[in-house]
Amino acid sequence: MSFLNGATVGYDAVNNKAVFIDQTLLPLEYKEISTDNYDEMYDAVKTLKVRGAPAIGVFAGICAAVLINKIKTNDYGVLMGEVEKICADFVKCRPTAVNLKWALEKVLCEGKISSGENIKQNLKTLALKMAEDDISVCRKIGEYGAELLADKNAILTHCNAGSLAAVKYGTALAPVYIAKERGKNIKVYVDETRPLLQGARLTAFELENAGVDATLICDNTAAAVMAKGLVDAVLVGCDRVAKNGDAANKIGTLSVAVLANFYKIPFYVCMPFSTFDPALDDGSQIVIEERAADEVTDFWYKQKMAPKGVRALNFAFDVTPASLITAFITEKGVISPAEIKKYSTEDTF
Amino acid sequence: MSFLNGATVGYDAVNNKAVFIDQTLLPLEYKEISTDNYDEMYDAVKTLKVRGAPAIGVFAGICAAVLINKIKTNDYGVLMGEVEKICADFVKCRPTAVNLKWALEKVLCEGKISSGENIKQNLKTLALKMAEDDISVCRKIGEYGAELLADKNAILTHCNAGSLAAVKYGTALAPVYIAKERGKNIKVYVDETRPLLQGARLTAFELENAGVDATLICDNTAAAVMAKGLVDAVLVGCDRVAKNGDAANKIGTLSVAVLANFYKIPFYVCMPFSTFDPALDDGSQIVIEERAADEVTDFWYKQKMAPKGVRALNFAFDVTPASLITAFITEKGVISPAEIKKYSTEDTF
Repeated sequence: MSFLNGATVGYDAVNNKAVFIDQTLLPLEYKEISTDNYDEMYDAVKTLKVRGAPAIGVFAGICAAVLINKIKTNDYGVLMGEVEKICADFVKCRPTAVNLKWALEKVLCEGKISSGENIKQNLKTLALKMAEDDISVCRKIGEYGAELLADKNAILTHCNAGSLAAVKYGTALAPVYIAKERGKNIKVYVDETRPLLQGARLTAFELENAGVDATLICDNTAAAVMAKGLVDAVLVGCDRVAKNGDAANKIGTLSVAVLANFYKIPFYVCMPFSTFDPALDDGSQIVIEERAADEVTDFWYKQKMAPKGVRALNFAFDVTPASLITAFITEKGVISPAEIKKYSTEDTF
Repeated sequence: MSFLNGATVGYDAVNNKAVFIDQTLLPLEYKEISTDNYDEMYDAVKTLKVRGAPAIGVFAGICAAVLINKIKTNDYGVLMGEVEKICADFVKCRPTAVNLKWALEKVLCEGKISSGENIKQNLKTLALKMAEDDISVCRKIGEYGAELLADKNAILTHCNAGSLAAVKYGTALAPVYIAKERGKNIKVYVDETRPLLQGARLTAFELENAGVDATLICDNTAAAVMAKGLVDAVLVGCDRVAKNGDAANKIGTLSVAVLANFYKIPFYVCMPFSTFDPALDDGSQIVIEERAADEVTDFWYKQKMAPKGVRALNFAFDVTPASLITAFITEKGVISPAEIKKYSTEDTF
């Protein structure tokens, strides 16, 4: 029995539970987890059971609603104390994607304007609205992006910025899904995306399920595929975009952007405005999460694949300079890096 | 007990055996295999127990000597028939690296100029000479390459073109080893090199053993490391270089070359002349080996890491255009791509 029914995260308001797919088990096992336990929620984000910038934002909103609604008292001070604590804790969990911060700021705001009687209901309403809005935002990204693609075009994507990275549709894959709805078949080259293999495990999985023609490649094969003229466009998601259009996304995105530039292939960053962070002047101010070295040397492997003691560098993200980005595909339309700087914090809410 | 004593392949002339390290077991287990069995030799090359363009060339020469010396008769016709059969079979085994073809042509030549009485001894002598020459050629590459590196420089390398890819020293890592002998410490960023992880398993292993400062990265992290200004030069090996300087090497080399070009980092291809193939006008004529899809989806993993039925493209090599190559580091000196076309087949012998 699926509560989520095609979505990636959801709010079971009847039982006051946050529901999510454990993405670390994919593609071998599809498992929905339903919880009102803070540790389990935090662990889900930390260990990437729930991942993808839009999805972790919405999930944080849902978790806040669940946790506050669990509390017996209706005392405003107690509840707001808890809201503040949850927000402060959660925001540290994954530092690069701004959506988490964005969602928690919305929660905090909603808390502040609520009274003791209505804070619980208001957070519930907010969480449900965030989930709904994410779907319509991603659908709009898909609609604008689909206009840029012709039937039988092939795109290349990196990591998973598909349905599994949002509530539904995703960002980078939304144009592929909407194009398909409109009778245009798009072929997708999928970078496997080391070390955690979100491309192989998640993107290939959801594209296969959706009946999209997908071809998996090692990350280092993108250049050869582009050199052969097989790629018409690159579509990626993003985790945080600075005021000047520099975009942080999964490690390896920068490499794909440099290659696309060299081979004169359009490079699109699919960005819901919840990922835009005009508080940062440029990409150098984006904090890049560094993860454990054993994700590179051991994690998915049968055995340790590097000699004992060797150092490994495991940046989870890199920053693509605005100069390498053809355009941002957003819910407000297709926007050039030059135009993006005109948008402000107000546009992100 | 080690017969090889630091070398990667060798000829045990006393027992008439080809000896090699089973590189598929590294870095967890070091195992020398000694054989005079044709199927075991062929399998060693096919399954990459012995790999690296220079190493498989020398190994083929050794195998031919062993197999011919095993035969009871001294009849010239019978022996040459066998030589021809071995050469024809072996050359198909791995189509991209030209060194295999180069070595087998030497064997064939030597056979043709020998008589029935001396063909066995001559092939033995040739095999031992090929192994010796490979060491001195690689050492020269190291000496010329070391001149290009300053103390505390950092290089980035892809795949394994080190000691384990040749008899000793290697090609791309030879300059690092010779620099170290001369008191210059070079830091090495090692691309793990999916799907078969020659970087993580072999390059990291031999650098650690040699006391070189090595940092392992996923292939997709090279761009981030370069963008941070951490890399002074890229050094790679090659499997076949066409007349115009286009160079085939491990899949992903092209990506590193495009990145180095973008970040204005010198990109050196370390090439023994046995890898030069002036019979080909340019890289488009190089046959690229395509290997099984399950190397990408399953091979080293605990479990299948992609959904059932998904297509995967697994080119073993790509071709870097001469325009992206700063220079070739060879046993004849450092040669620009413009100069390389002046060399002919005679220079490869």
